[in-house]
Amino acid sequence: MSQAASVPTNNSPLADLPPISSILFEAKARKGLTFDQIAKEIGKDEVWLAAAFYGQAKFEEEDLKKVAQVLDIATETAIAGFGSHWWPNRGLGPMPPTDPVIYRLYEGVLVYGHAIKAVIHEKFGDGIMSMIDCKIDVTKKPDPKGDRVVLTFDGKFLSYAKW
Amino acid sequence: MSQAASVPTNNSPLADLPPISSILFEAKARKGLTFDQIAKEIGKDEVWLAAAFYGQAKFEEEDLKKVAQVLDIATETAIAGFGSHWWPNRGLGPMPPTDPVIYRLYEGVLVYGHAIKAVIHEKFGDGIMSMIDCKIDVTKKPDPKGDRVVLTFDGKFLSYAKW
Amino acid sequence: MSQAASVPTNNSPLADLPPISSILFEAKARKGLTFDQIAKEIGKDEVWLAAAFYGQAKFEEEDLKKVAQVLDIATETAIAGFGSHWWPNRGLGPMPPTDPVIYRLYEGVLVYGHAIKAVIHEKFGDGIMSMIDCKIDVTKKPDPKGDRVVLTFDGKFLSYAKW
Amino acid sequence: MSQAASVPTNNSPLADLPPISSILFEAKARKGLTFDQIAKEIGKDEVWLAAAFYGQAKFEEEDLKKVAQVLDIATETAIAGFGSHWWPNRGLGPMPPTDPVIYRLYEGVLVYGHAIKAVIHEKFGDGIMSMIDCKIDVTKKPDPKGDRVVLTFDGKFLSYAKW
Amino acid sequence: MSQAASVPTNNSPLADLPPISSILFEAKARKGLTFDQIAKEIGKDEVWLAAAFYGQAKFEEEDLKKVAQVLDIATETAIAGFGSHWWPNRGLGPMPPTDPVIYRLYEGVLVYGHAIKAVIHEKFGDGIMSMIDCKIDVTKKPDPKGDRVVLTFDGKFLSYAKW
Amino acid sequence: MSQAASVPTNNSPLADLPPISSILFEAKARKGLTFDQIAKEIGKDEVWLAAAFYGQAKFEEEDLKKVAQVLDIATETAIAGFGSHWWPNRGLGPMPPTDPVIYRLYEGVLVYGHAIKAVIHEKFGDGIMSMIDCKIDVTKKPDPKGDRVVLTFDGKFLSYAKW
Amino acid sequence: MSQAASVPTNNSPLADLPPISSILFEAKARKGLTFDQIAKEIGKDEVWLAAAFYGQAKFEEEDLKKVAQVLDIATETAIAGFGSHWWPNRGLGPMPPTDPVIYRLYEGVLVYGHAIKAVIHEKFGDGIMSMIDCKIDVTKKPDPKGDRVVLTFDGKFLSYAKW
Amino acid sequence: MSQAASVPTNNSPLADLPPISSILFEAKARKGLTFDQIAKEIGKDEVWLAAAFYGQAKFEEEDLKKVAQVLDIATETAIAGFGSHWWPNRGLGPMPPTDPVIYRLYEGVLVYGHAIKAVIHEKFGDGIMSMIDCKIDVTKKPDPKGDRVVLTFDGKFLSYAKW
Amino acid sequence: MSQAASVPTNNSPLADLPPISSILFEAKARKGLTFDQIAKEIGKDEVWLAAAFYGQAKFEEEDLKKVAQVLDIATETAIAGFGSHWWPNRGLGPMPPTDPVIYRLYEGVLVYGHAIKAVIHEKFGDGIMSMIDCKIDVTKKPDPKGDRVVLTFDGKFLSYAKW
Amino acid sequence: MSQAASVPTNNSPLADLPPISSILFEAKARKGLTFDQIAKEIGKDEVWLAAAFYGQAKFEEEDLKKVAQVLDIATETAIAGFGSHWWPNRGLGPMPPTDPVIYRLYEGVLVYGHAIKAVIHEKFGDGIMSMIDCKIDVTKKPDPKGDRVVLTFDGKFLSYAKW
Repeated sequence: MSQAASVPTNNSPLADLPPISSILFEAKARKGLTFDQIAKEIGKDEVWLAAAFYGQAKFEEEDLKKVAQVLDIATETAIAGFGSHWWPNRGLGPMPPTDPVIYRLYEGVLVYGHAIKAVIHEKFGDGIMSMIDCKIDVTKKPDPKGDRVVLTFDGKFLSYAKW
Repeated sequence: MSQAASVPTNNSPLADLPPISSILFEAKARKGLTFDQIAKEIGKDEVWLAAAFYGQAKFEEEDLKKVAQVLDIATETAIAGFGSHWWPNRGLGPMPPTDPVIYRLYEGVLVYGHAIKAVIHEKFGDGIMSMIDCKIDVTKKPDPKGDRVVLTFDGKFLSYAKW
Repeated sequence: MSQAASVPTNNSPLADLPPISSILFEAKARKGLTFDQIAKEIGKDEVWLAAAFYGQAKFEEEDLKKVAQVLDIATETAIAGFGSHWWPNRGLGPMPPTDPVIYRLYEGVLVYGHAIKAVIHEKFGDGIMSMIDCKIDVTKKPDPKGDRVVLTFDGKFLSYAKW
Repeated sequence: MSQAASVPTNNSPLADLPPISSILFEAKARKGLTFDQIAKEIGKDEVWLAAAFYGQAKFEEEDLKKVAQVLDIATETAIAGFGSHWWPNRGLGPMPPTDPVIYRLYEGVLVYGHAIKAVIHEKFGDGIMSMIDCKIDVTKKPDPKGDRVVLTFDGKFLSYAKW
Repeated sequence: MSQAASVPTNNSPLADLPPISSILFEAKARKGLTFDQIAKEIGKDEVWLAAAFYGQAKFEEEDLKKVAQVLDIATETAIAGFGSHWWPNRGLGPMPPTDPVIYRLYEGVLVYGHAIKAVIHEKFGDGIMSMIDCKIDVTKKPDPKGDRVVLTFDGKFLSYAKW
Repeated sequence: MSQAASVPTNNSPLADLPPISSILFEAKARKGLTFDQIAKEIGKDEVWLAAAFYGQAKFEEEDLKKVAQVLDIATETAIAGFGSHWWPNRGLGPMPPTDPVIYRLYEGVLVYGHAIKAVIHEKFGDGIMSMIDCKIDVTKKPDPKGDRVVLTFDGKFLSYAKW
Repeated sequence: MSQAASVPTNNSPLADLPPISSILFEAKARKGLTFDQIAKEIGKDEVWLAAAFYGQAKFEEEDLKKVAQVLDIATETAIAGFGSHWWPNRGLGPMPPTDPVIYRLYEGVLVYGHAIKAVIHEKFGDGIMSMIDCKIDVTKKPDPKGDRVVLTFDGKFLSYAKW
Repeated sequence: MSQAASVPTNNSPLADLPPISSILFEAKARKGLTFDQIAKEIGKDEVWLAAAFYGQAKFEEEDLKKVAQVLDIATETAIAGFGSHWWPNRGLGPMPPTDPVIYRLYEGVLVYGHAIKAVIHEKFGDGIMSMIDCKIDVTKKPDPKGDRVVLTFDGKFLSYAKW
Repeated sequence: MSQAASVPTNNSPLADLPPISSILFEAKARKGLTFDQIAKEIGKDEVWLAAAFYGQAKFEEEDLKKVAQVLDIATETAIAGFGSHWWPNRGLGPMPPTDPVIYRLYEGVLVYGHAIKAVIHEKFGDGIMSMIDCKIDVTKKPDPKGDRVVLTFDGKFLSYAKW
Repeated sequence: MSQAASVPTNNSPLADLPPISSILFEAKARKGLTFDQIAKEIGKDEVWLAAAFYGQAKFEEEDLKKVAQVLDIATETAIAGFGSHWWPNRGLGPMPPTDPVIYRLYEGVLVYGHAIKAVIHEKFGDGIMSMIDCKIDVTKKPDPKGDRVVLTFDGKFLSYAKW
């Protein structure tokens, strides 16, 4: 990867994130590492790690120290930007999404949302799948007719309170 | 289930669907069947079947005949409403969703969309997970700390054309 | 209350709800009962009960039977409209709200949302107050300078998953 | 807390606030103080104080002097930024909120707003709960099944004028 | 006025109001009375009365009885439609308004809103003009260069709570 | 007033106005003058003057010279920024307004707009109250139960052309 | 024109208008008359007349009687629908317009609005072209390269009040 | 005109235009010229010229040279900013417009759009008035009751293709 | 095709169209004909014909007579619904589209719109591709890797007027 | 082409793109090359190339090297800005589009979208035309009545999965 890798900070989504996000993305580009490689170094999953880079999850200081080490950036810089005084202000990018990758996920909600809701109710009763206590995974499934993306949400079922 | 089960056709989402949808939902309620039970009878998955009830997938006539039989409704009624002259006009319900079950899926896109996109690109290159050639599954995973919903999208990766 | 009490079903919010909602509201008006009176009869809280009348919470059949008895309507009617085949499609009314009572709650989110979020994070860490496992109470607090409404949300704190 | 704690001023919500807000947040981070700790020093509640930091409430000069002292910043800086020539331009962040903490409050209005309105009318008559003469409190309630957030709005009831 | 005066109930604003509103408007048209004439009969102001016809204010039963008498409609009809079981669901018509009369008021907020806010703060401090405890008057002021509409809002000043 | 009074130019509404607006607001803060005091010096009303500060009305050069003198700023600066080459681009702030002071005016239009329209038609016929040839006044009316804001719009009635 | 000419009342714009509009349009179709022909009979311009058919201008009773006569409908029907008890609720159709004819006018505002504003200010000073005291004309101008539509707005200039 | 005439580039509409637009507007202010005066020098109409200043029409190099000469700015500057490599990205300002001058044009579309469409169809058949091959003129028409703005769109009629 | 083929008229897009559209669609379903088959009978293209069925193009009476004959419906019915008194009110369905087939076209505009604009300007100069004088074609192109849809817009280039 | 060609980076669309986009556009302007000329040099189509300049397609490093050479810019600059660490965040410009060239494409979707969908279904069954595996072409077709733009989308048909 070029030493000069520049990450555009004037436009979405980085323009909407803390400056430390750009520093992390540039260091990652300079190192030529994938999220999966960094995630393995710090003992986390790549989707969670990517979310944290995008300011959508909160690093603990232990995480930040490891990330700084892997990416060769100063620990203090990482902590000053994403430390204990900072909390994610979650939600990123326009809705409806304009990028086709993200739009397809949105389309999944638009087309299949009611079907998923109906099946959740039939299997679990009145409640929801938590998006807070939820783990997300992206796996590549080889297929002779074309590889497939397997995207999994594993979230706790929460029953509606009655009082 | 009560013989008199009524399905509200004056409001979302049924108000926005063909009348045959209400007929199917009422017959299902009268029979007291789940989507899973009907799906097994006709050799389809429950999420796909629910999507078809909501007018978001297209029954073939073979499917419709089986559904009509399972639900004890006239085959002609089913075919008149959802037959070969009818094509889904997909997309159902308001966006952003107001129902918390569906909103949580939308929140997954809002919070984790960019992370998922980044990992897809790192694993597959420039392209998308198809929401057309995509299968969706909802599974109940028992857990002592509270059962979990496992929602899986299994979609073909499509590379961007260059020309 | 007049026997002829009519409940407008052509406009918001009843126009957006199942017909059984109007039946319940008309019976309630005919009986001249408050939500508090009905709630006490069925062993629930008045806010939860009102939410259920508005189709925003799910009655169990036991609840429905008691409500039908209190309001002198046929049990089958109640169950046909709100029975086990029916699931709330939650979310009611325009946003931003046009009604000043509801708008003031919305204004509370608009003006004090970030302050509430900051204090929750300082007291609990990275997570949310659940609106699913949440109980809501409205109390009248007499005050010589003018009575006060005390509105309380009592919701479980949910930590963000890390994985 | 790191001396170098940086507060992102290029994105929501600080990008939408007077520069003095960022100065206060950075000093607070440097000092490692919570809103509760500062609030106790100046004789105010933590939610009100956080609202004032976010430019959603108006400090009087007495308040500002105490805050400046607690945070070790120049009094003149505080007064130049938030003094008597400045009035809050209230309302902060996108609606619907994208952050899940704030969204859950919004969802409370969306799902329970009509129920709350109905109970207020039954208890008080035609009028509203004021969001101007209203005090807000966030308390942590320990619970073996998971601690709970208790969020209270205590607002004056205002009757609709008739003339 | 023609006995056959018909009031369009299929379009805005009457389509969004309880049916009793149309009944009142039709009776008023049949009688050929102005709001001012009816208001004087019942001891109220014409703007308040018009607001009540449009479902934006709440008649007490005493008011309804007088209105019914003036308009020659059955008292029970009026009470069944607008009685004690009914509460205004306030807010009427599209925003931004499409009708030029109402748009001009909206334009007043758009163009002069900040100036009015600044002067209120300078005269009263941090707070608002209540729209709940507010009386509204429309007067015709003759002027040789063209008559003028004098529209007055007389609302209580409410100070922001500090706590 | 502090010599250092700073006026936030990075956020609404000043961020949306010509730089001369901030210069005027800062000078006014430095001088510690109210709109009313400045207005009297230049022979205009305070609401009109505040509107002009916010770029919503057009100063003539005579006005600008007097304002510059009262505020001790260079006349050329005022004229360079707001002179004869500049025309107001009217309309300021988000709609619906997020600030409660301005929102209440908006709520007045939302709730009472149709009533005001109806009374205007009954008194004047088919036409509007002009918001161009309109004078606006804010007065403080002492009241033992709490002072009141009296906000008056005095606008010319304009008849609809027929041709 | 066929005696059976039907005018769709279930969709825009007639669905949003009083029923008398449909009656007028059907009678006009049955008679096979243009707006110009009817307008000449009643001494009005065709654009104004079309606006009145669409409920965007107010017929006086004299106008209505003539229109009823020309179209062979009962005078009482016309007066019951559009009489003195009825006032236009102006503004019709979606914005931005979806119909290309109307969209082009909208595009004229979007592309040339600022230029028109600048020239009006240079020629007239600070004020507007009234859309209330405004006459609109549509003329066909033959041209060998293709006939041209000449659309003219002739509106009174109104100066901004200063006070 | 003051040599120091400044044109606000931080707000609408200039903030949304190429920097060369501000240069032209400032030079025009410095010279104290109207669009009409400049237009006559370069042999174009004032409305077209104003549109080009606002980046809504494309200068040819011949035009730019003449404009540069009239305004005493360097020809290369004009060509570098608006030259052959640049194409208008048309459409300027918010919709609905907030400025009353432009809003009135928008209101013309909202209120009279359907009437204009109907008359165009009756005179020309199925098609539109082109906004591409369209010339726009603003004329001052003296009138003892108040001068009038005559705004004319002269656009080619285009028939809808059938194939 | 079943004699009983029913076409849902309660939802989009038919709910937004004249009743004659539903009659045509039902007759077409009953006959089991494709647009291509009907188009060939009447000497038109299938895309144009489908647009006319959806109320987006105007049938001449000659066309209507042939369509009525092919579909075995009464000519008078067709002419009463879509005759010379009726003009298309073009524009159908929500934007952004929710149906994936139509959304993909929208995505083409969102992603490739600027590229297409740039190439049109380089090839033709300042102007547009007309969507009025435009013919649209959909062809199936067999391909061993999967058949392809070839969608062609053939529209006249229109130069921008300068005046 | 002027050496000084400047490309406005403060406004749409370049303000929303990585800085490397502006560098490419300026170099292209300086060289005076069309997309077609550059595309031929690098063996790609002009529409694809323009999309890549606008950040809507991903250059491979081989492409970037050739582009850098043709435009006389440093290869490292190109790769630092658009290299392997960068992925398009697709979707550009406002929707609905304000520029008439792009709006006409949008209008094509609005007016003809349902017709195109219907014909695709009749020719291919239930599925979509891919906008990912899609090639786009713009051709100039000379025509004595005015040259025509032929815009072609050639996209793979994708069948909906059933499972």
